[in-house]
Amino acid sequence: MENNEIKQAVMMKASAAKEASRKLSVMTSGQKNNMLAAMAEALAQNAKEILFHNEIDVDAAKDAGLSAALIDRLTLDEKRIGDMIKGVKDVILLEDPVGSCVEEYKPSIEIDIKKIRVPLGVISMIYESRPNVTVDAATLCLKAGNAVVLKGGSEAINSNRILAKIISEAGVKAGMPAGAVQFIDTTDRTAVLEMIKLKYFIDLLIPRGSEELVNFINQNSSIPVLSHGKGLCHTYVDKDADMDMAFKIAFNAKCQRPGVCNAMETLLVHKDIASKFLPQMCKNYFDSGVKINGCALTKSIVPSVNEASEENWSKEYHDLELSIKVVNSIEEAIAHINKYGSMHSDAIITNNKEAADKFLMEVDSAAVFHNASTRLHDGSVFGLGCEIGISTMKLHARGTMGIKELTTTKYVVRGSGTIRN
Amino acid sequence: MENNEIKQAVMMKASAAKEASRKLSVMTSGQKNNMLAAMAEALAQNAKEILFHNEIDVDAAKDAGLSAALIDRLTLDEKRIGDMIKGVKDVILLEDPVGSCVEEYKPSIEIDIKKIRVPLGVISMIYESRPNVTVDAATLCLKAGNAVVLKGGSEAINSNRILAKIISEAGVKAGMPAGAVQFIDTTDRTAVLEMIKLKYFIDLLIPRGSEELVNFINQNSSIPVLSHGKGLCHTYVDKDADMDMAFKIAFNAKCQRPGVCNAMETLLVHKDIASKFLPQMCKNYFDSGVKINGCALTKSIVPSVNEASEENWSKEYHDLELSIKVVNSIEEAIAHINKYGSMHSDAIITNNKEAADKFLMEVDSAAVFHNASTRLHDGSVFGLGCEIGISTMKLHARGTMGIKELTTTKYVVRGSGTIRN
Repeated sequence: MENNEIKQAVMMKASAAKEASRKLSVMTSGQKNNMLAAMAEALAQNAKEILFHNEIDVDAAKDAGLSAALIDRLTLDEKRIGDMIKGVKDVILLEDPVGSCVEEYKPSIEIDIKKIRVPLGVISMIYESRPNVTVDAATLCLKAGNAVVLKGGSEAINSNRILAKIISEAGVKAGMPAGAVQFIDTTDRTAVLEMIKLKYFIDLLIPRGSEELVNFINQNSSIPVLSHGKGLCHTYVDKDADMDMAFKIAFNAKCQRPGVCNAMETLLVHKDIASKFLPQMCKNYFDSGVKINGCALTKSIVPSVNEASEENWSKEYHDLELSIKVVNSIEEAIAHINKYGSMHSDAIITNNKEAADKFLMEVDSAAVFHNASTRLHDGSVFGLGCEIGISTMKLHARGTMGIKELTTTKYVVRGSGTIRN
Repeated sequence: MENNEIKQAVMMKASAAKEASRKLSVMTSGQKNNMLAAMAEALAQNAKEILFHNEIDVDAAKDAGLSAALIDRLTLDEKRIGDMIKGVKDVILLEDPVGSCVEEYKPSIEIDIKKIRVPLGVISMIYESRPNVTVDAATLCLKAGNAVVLKGGSEAINSNRILAKIISEAGVKAGMPAGAVQFIDTTDRTAVLEMIKLKYFIDLLIPRGSEELVNFINQNSSIPVLSHGKGLCHTYVDKDADMDMAFKIAFNAKCQRPGVCNAMETLLVHKDIASKFLPQMCKNYFDSGVKINGCALTKSIVPSVNEASEENWSKEYHDLELSIKVVNSIEEAIAHINKYGSMHSDAIITNNKEAADKFLMEVDSAAVFHNASTRLHDGSVFGLGCEIGISTMKLHARGTMGIKELTTTKYVVRGSGTIRN
């Protein structure tokens, strides 16, 4: 296709999604759940066809010499299709946020004001290799009453196309407004460049994927963006920490799954406890293959660590590697976190209530933890039922985001001939 | 000052505000109210000095031949200083949103999660001629625990400088962290261009003033922006409307204060009621000097109206001028509003509950009204106690915004050695 044709196709799809979103916004939870149930069933019935199209992508990825990790993310099998179907069923079980009353005002006898949750309208997802996002994202948006415009990675285009086709057709048969699920069927970059300008049709963009992709969208979109921020998380072991608890939590925060955004990257230790705490803690890390970059004081206590430089305090390893710094006070720990952290997830280990309260109040992060691992910052652990990501922004949504963040509000005012005097 | 000096000065001020914001964020409501009370008193004690500096601005504005309206907005007198002081006292009475619990999760016995309101950090206000904004904005931000960076219009620089000095000094004497109120003391445009880049120090920008200013900030800021949107509001008179109520509300929505964003710009009338309703309604408008641009059907009923063209449906008059369109159905009315409106405030007049519910649900606006005037969309009418503006955005804040919108949230998680399995 020519650039202009692509642009026009994208605009037509976004415009059709807007129209469908009007109809979706007034559907009941029961109607929406019926659509979703039909989608789950259609995915099960068409598993073979999905695998057939997925194989085309996987073969092409192998021919192109893509990395084993990427090919793994791209590959579907019966189990992964089962997980996808389970995901849709989980969305059916989620409470529908639409219509719920957030606040109520009764400024005078003749007027009644309710602030209620309503869908955002049209949500566009821009994502990379994992085909399951096509289904996960679409169903979550639909449950919150939004139409969705899907733009997946080029390496997964055959898988995404068939998945979008299956859920869209099954949805429409079960009463979904035609056009509510739009799939941008091109690998041309022009499509994304066009999408991020369509603010009259698309109400929210959610980019998922590499930091590069997310930054590009954030900087160039004229549509509001909800994005998953980077995570440079800390654990601070206070002088009044329970030592065994500190060993356990600091180990969990680094080692349980080091590649994710809520894993710890820097361990801060109060000087009064450092010489008792660090030798055993570092041994535990070394035994699990963790590379440690410590400050001069850490190195004087555990000589086998590497010496950290200033850059280490700003480093997200996302791997079995860790920075350790000994601090003189809780104030220094808090200042360090507020200076070098990414305002994501930070923890204090202490039995001192005052110290805990001070830390929880003064650390300026989306989630702060007392005697708990930063790894707990997660929608499913918190009981949200689902997670769109963890926002490190301060507006609209902060920290783990659930289905509620896919809605906005509206004031509904009922009067009886009421005017402004 | 040279450009580089201005840039550096702005950065230093924003950085100092960030530091002060850390201290402000942990202050109690009582401490913050004390600061505000001291500011109110200092304004009263220094009224003469304020008027002296204001006169310099007013004289310069007169010499420069600025418009009478602008000079009026710029001018302070004892009454206006009194209003300013009253405004500060009103802010003292506002409930402090900081620390309040928004949501609570208890996913397991050993973990306790609270989502609480916390200050945003540093808020920058960019505004034009009215010097009272210096005091109104600063005190509202401070009450929500935020530091503030003020950049007023060049024509009010002497007034703004003295007001900022008085409240800042009085605040510090009463315990406010030094640096919490920053005044950008230059009329050079470089300052604004620099401010809107400082995303590591400033958490939110609030532009107030001309559409041009607001659009410029929105398009060029790398800091999140909360802005007051434009208002193209509608009133729809349904076939089941109470005629007297419709006369009253439709008149109020247009004429009570035509220059503001929640005044009606387009009146939609159901065809079944048009020939009964329009002659008297138009007479009422004509008697008050309203210029009417009507569709062909309107003109056939009231020949003395001007004929409307397509552009009229997108026109914000902000004056005694109105578009009128006869529609065939409530569906047409809703579609018209969703197409031409600015998603601000729209009303239906009807005694038919079903029609009202349909309208309230399907019109995609920040506030929807049944048997009430769009002019009621206002923080003080709704009982918020204050208003920062009316947002037509869908993220973070929608519709009239109060002090709560000057905060964000934070997850506070308390465990007992809790880790992720």
